[in-house]
Amino acid sequence: MTSDDMTSHGRSGPAHGTLGVAVIGTGRMGADHVRRINDVISGARVAAVVDIDADRIGHLAAGIEGCTPYTDPTAAMDDPGVNAVLIASPGPAHEAALLDAFARDLPVLCEKPLTPDPASALRVLEAEQKLGHRRVQVGFMRRYDADYLTLKSLLDKGAYGRPLMLHNKHRNADTPPGFTNAMMIHDSVVHEIDVTRWLLDEEIAAVRVLRPAPTGNAPDGLSDPQLILFETAAGQVVDTELFVNCGFGYQVSCEAVCESGTARIGDDRGVFVNTAGHWGGSITPGFVERFEEAYDRQVQRWVDATRRGEVEGPSCWDGYAAAAVCEAGVRAQATGERVTVDLIERPALYER
Amino acid sequence: MTSDDMTSHGRSGPAHGTLGVAVIGTGRMGADHVRRINDVISGARVAAVVDIDADRIGHLAAGIEGCTPYTDPTAAMDDPGVNAVLIASPGPAHEAALLDAFARDLPVLCEKPLTPDPASALRVLEAEQKLGHRRVQVGFMRRYDADYLTLKSLLDKGAYGRPLMLHNKHRNADTPPGFTNAMMIHDSVVHEIDVTRWLLDEEIAAVRVLRPAPTGNAPDGLSDPQLILFETAAGQVVDTELFVNCGFGYQVSCEAVCESGTARIGDDRGVFVNTAGHWGGSITPGFVERFEEAYDRQVQRWVDATRRGEVEGPSCWDGYAAAAVCEAGVRAQATGERVTVDLIERPALYER
Amino acid sequence: MTSDDMTSHGRSGPAHGTLGVAVIGTGRMGADHVRRINDVISGARVAAVVDIDADRIGHLAAGIEGCTPYTDPTAAMDDPGVNAVLIASPGPAHEAALLDAFARDLPVLCEKPLTPDPASALRVLEAEQKLGHRRVQVGFMRRYDADYLTLKSLLDKGAYGRPLMLHNKHRNADTPPGFTNAMMIHDSVVHEIDVTRWLLDEEIAAVRVLRPAPTGNAPDGLSDPQLILFETAAGQVVDTELFVNCGFGYQVSCEAVCESGTARIGDDRGVFVNTAGHWGGSITPGFVERFEEAYDRQVQRWVDATRRGEVEGPSCWDGYAAAAVCEAGVRAQATGERVTVDLIERPALYER
Amino acid sequence: MTSDDMTSHGRSGPAHGTLGVAVIGTGRMGADHVRRINDVISGARVAAVVDIDADRIGHLAAGIEGCTPYTDPTAAMDDPGVNAVLIASPGPAHEAALLDAFARDLPVLCEKPLTPDPASALRVLEAEQKLGHRRVQVGFMRRYDADYLTLKSLLDKGAYGRPLMLHNKHRNADTPPGFTNAMMIHDSVVHEIDVTRWLLDEEIAAVRVLRPAPTGNAPDGLSDPQLILFETAAGQVVDTELFVNCGFGYQVSCEAVCESGTARIGDDRGVFVNTAGHWGGSITPGFVERFEEAYDRQVQRWVDATRRGEVEGPSCWDGYAAAAVCEAGVRAQATGERVTVDLIERPALYER
Repeated sequence: MTSDDMTSHGRSGPAHGTLGVAVIGTGRMGADHVRRINDVISGARVAAVVDIDADRIGHLAAGIEGCTPYTDPTAAMDDPGVNAVLIASPGPAHEAALLDAFARDLPVLCEKPLTPDPASALRVLEAEQKLGHRRVQVGFMRRYDADYLTLKSLLDKGAYGRPLMLHNKHRNADTPPGFTNAMMIHDSVVHEIDVTRWLLDEEIAAVRVLRPAPTGNAPDGLSDPQLILFETAAGQVVDTELFVNCGFGYQVSCEAVCESGTARIGDDRGVFVNTAGHWGGSITPGFVERFEEAYDRQVQRWVDATRRGEVEGPSCWDGYAAAAVCEAGVRAQATGERVTVDLIERPALYER
Repeated sequence: MTSDDMTSHGRSGPAHGTLGVAVIGTGRMGADHVRRINDVISGARVAAVVDIDADRIGHLAAGIEGCTPYTDPTAAMDDPGVNAVLIASPGPAHEAALLDAFARDLPVLCEKPLTPDPASALRVLEAEQKLGHRRVQVGFMRRYDADYLTLKSLLDKGAYGRPLMLHNKHRNADTPPGFTNAMMIHDSVVHEIDVTRWLLDEEIAAVRVLRPAPTGNAPDGLSDPQLILFETAAGQVVDTELFVNCGFGYQVSCEAVCESGTARIGDDRGVFVNTAGHWGGSITPGFVERFEEAYDRQVQRWVDATRRGEVEGPSCWDGYAAAAVCEAGVRAQATGERVTVDLIERPALYER
Repeated sequence: MTSDDMTSHGRSGPAHGTLGVAVIGTGRMGADHVRRINDVISGARVAAVVDIDADRIGHLAAGIEGCTPYTDPTAAMDDPGVNAVLIASPGPAHEAALLDAFARDLPVLCEKPLTPDPASALRVLEAEQKLGHRRVQVGFMRRYDADYLTLKSLLDKGAYGRPLMLHNKHRNADTPPGFTNAMMIHDSVVHEIDVTRWLLDEEIAAVRVLRPAPTGNAPDGLSDPQLILFETAAGQVVDTELFVNCGFGYQVSCEAVCESGTARIGDDRGVFVNTAGHWGGSITPGFVERFEEAYDRQVQRWVDATRRGEVEGPSCWDGYAAAAVCEAGVRAQATGERVTVDLIERPALYER
Repeated sequence: MTSDDMTSHGRSGPAHGTLGVAVIGTGRMGADHVRRINDVISGARVAAVVDIDADRIGHLAAGIEGCTPYTDPTAAMDDPGVNAVLIASPGPAHEAALLDAFARDLPVLCEKPLTPDPASALRVLEAEQKLGHRRVQVGFMRRYDADYLTLKSLLDKGAYGRPLMLHNKHRNADTPPGFTNAMMIHDSVVHEIDVTRWLLDEEIAAVRVLRPAPTGNAPDGLSDPQLILFETAAGQVVDTELFVNCGFGYQVSCEAVCESGTARIGDDRGVFVNTAGHWGGSITPGFVERFEEAYDRQVQRWVDATRRGEVEGPSCWDGYAAAAVCEAGVRAQATGERVTVDLIERPALYER
């Protein structure tokens, strides 16, 4: 892809020209974002790729017209072809990259987590407030899934009265080696944490975790499945079945129980088959197939908003709140008790 | 469904007592009716069993209190414990049994077909008219299936405007040895013939049969699947996919396309399973599982009506009309042409 | 219905003749059982009806051949036409009626609850043990629902490995006047208590109740919906959404999450409609429509077993265990804490 | 889908740069394609817009950087920024535009129909053959719908044996003023014609049209619904319910009946709701919502292939065959008879 004539993007912004994106981190997620921006997204191009693995980014950049490889994120941010940053490096590297982007006032799409813990998230929050305007969209991509968007719209207009409960299911066929109980909260349940806060427009006030006798298919030491219970500030109750070695595929569903009706998303779909004594269809194998369009839409919306000079979507506040609930969730998991979630007062920059 | 007031019974009758039934024919269907009356039906008992196989009926009768075995149907009908007759013998034997029952003014539940062809059906029709009141309920048991009943009720009240088309599917896992193209009409499509006439309350005026290149799973010479097309007297079009070696199970469905909506019955149901990469459930294996309750309800309704001194349900007219459409269907199958159906004028006894 | 020739039933039992049933209590449930035995059940008749309202039972008995009205349950039990007792009186009257039936060694179908609390249930348990054989089938009719039976069979044969969790939903359109939080446990959740114990073949060891901010459609003081959580002795976790003023109909569903698959029952079914911008169907209005066949099958199985001289189905132990979990549930509801369930050791008479 | 190797482009071409597209015709479809190329498609831009309405294209072009308005299609094709042509003008104008594009050896995406009748389609076919390589992708966009693609893939790998029948449903809420019986074939059924040929990889050999008594909701003179029947050269039978004033929304479904199974696509999906006595969801209102992604994917694939110097997708042969079946269909509709379809021998350029 060639660059369009963007006569005056410089640091003053793309002015409706093609957005030059520096992708920081080129592991699984980062490499996928590079492909996405190259082949799918309208109005953006990969201007720089950043990784500590110089060979990998050399090869990557060679296949993309006008793309420069960097091992130093700040050097990429200083590239004159770069007007925006997509952070897909490991979580512990996010804080530094975010602060570097703030220093250059660059718009950022930051993969979740914002940072791995509430304390570091608070530092990012404060830095963005000093800038005086939002710069970060956090990668909670379920907010861009067509089904979740429809559900959100039904709840926002009160189609069935106030929401009283959510029932979530989050099932993975299996887990990679080294997957821990804490990762079940930080990497898996974090999506239900964000979805709960977003759909209900309420903070999560308390967490409980129930741990059934585990499946024989779970690795030793992994408590799988688990039942995670949230109470919101408004008294709603949310349960999430997390079952990450269910064996049969990937399923993410959410049923909102409202005063005069329920609405559920996430049923498997596609071709309906009758054969060999059975009716039905195939279960989505993994999150890529399930949420590919949400990833595409997330990045397209970020590119579109950035080209308009705007910032939308999940904010640093959402990243911070998720980190705080995760921290409480891990404690609840360990103790079996109800653990309350403590948040600072919501800053004016992040007011609804 | 119509009902007759019957002022005088042939015999002093059950007078709300337990109905003594003579079951004529104890093959697959007959034996199942014996079991049904014994174990399931309230208000009736098997008073006589009739078959040419004296051993079989001897054993059958021995296990039932107060049941006498007969090899001669008229002897059974003359048994003082018999107040009603259930005919489950082969189709060619029906005419004689029906006339014998008429001679004794006994109420009859006659398994389909009423008789195997329109000419013999007409003779039965005339004999019943001479009696002056209806005596026969024909065993079109789909009219007693809960789903068909709901669909009938929706159509009768015009829930979605006038019905314009029906789409039927009729699938069997496989066929018994010796199953012929003509039997595909007489034994299988005959159900869609009755259902069409009953649901739409219209006679079938013309038939076409399309014969796709057959499945490799059909026996030599069997044209399977087929697409059967009816036009009703009111101009409605009805298509039926008949696929009797589909391999995967038994499915009977019907979708009525009306002016402002469609209504479909017959989707497989039951336990919903996620496992091994698939969602879905089991397909009903055969007609017994699918229509067991309809058979039970058919016989219970017959017993209940008979004890009240009434006759309800499919009449000899329905049996005659079905025979006429079958005859036209077999010709349409052979020629590939549109074949019209000729019926006599509907006698007063069978007015709607 | 007339009585069959039961030459020697007397107290020595029906000997495969028609069972003469005394129905004790002729309120909503009792009157429905009278109708059921009269019109639906094969092999039984209503020989006596018992209520304190002499007018009501006079009218009831007058319409049934050979049925005598009684205001005193023991007089009915002493009627020579009576060989079995169906108790459908209010719960507090059950203990006395059960002990009276034990004194006469009569088989009993006792509507749930066995008795209203664990202490009285224990007394019944001891009395039956003194008889030395089971006499009571308790009316947990979900065990006779076709879908639950299929699910039970899948779990028993380990189709998808060990069950790890159950997700239950129990929704009613609305509640009658005077319905209380305690009744939500005793009258509604009691079904999930029995279903959990039966499906998993494990006792319930602990209960938690979470109470979301209630719907505006609930009467004052009713905490609706609620989320009830069971832990079984084997460590399984069971959640039940109870929502008794959901407004839209009656829904009872159960999803078993097993090691290699999930199996769910209770989805609404029936006619599938497209109309006015919507696809779908009607929600079952109430428990009668949903469980009518289960009630029929429960009584038919009881009649069949009794005529064979056997006792099957839910036992007094099941009634006692349910009462114990209900008592714990009401405490859990009040305190918000985890409450353990204490049971006596299971007597030999009730061994699995 | 076939692809051609194109060794030489007419113009030096985009050479993997951004494709400059001239959009000819800016009515509903054309304007939508302009928006699509601008906002959604990666690797292409609108370089020229062509219409006889100079005001409309002046406004359109003013909002797009580097886009020139033209009233003369050939002038647009001669614009040096134009490397490809998207024809969205009315059908009768297609032949001239196609021949002009051939004269300049420009790649074309031509909205269906290729041309309105078989004779003109044959002239285009011959002109393309003279070029010696394929230049045209015809806009049968269902081939780019995710569900149809999955079904095609299942059929191609013989997942359930040979396909024997297809059941199609094609329903629209209502028709625009002036919609005629012939348009029901040319504008609506044409999609099922292409889908049938593509899915089964067979030509359509004969057509029948059955016309039920029409709905009261159809405009005078419109025979709605209709049942269209195809026979393929291999003897498969395909039925299509076409109901274009069904009132309740837009539904396109296709069930392939194969030797050992059936596979169906097109069921409505999305949020599952329980409310007000009903379960279910919303019906897709129109073709835009149903096939939006297919339109996007069609154009993206065309852009991607064109940038690689290739031609894929439905060819002029597909356009010609569809025109021939449409012509036969309109005759079948008028006569009620079976009408055979005559095709020329398939030229080498269009070999499978």
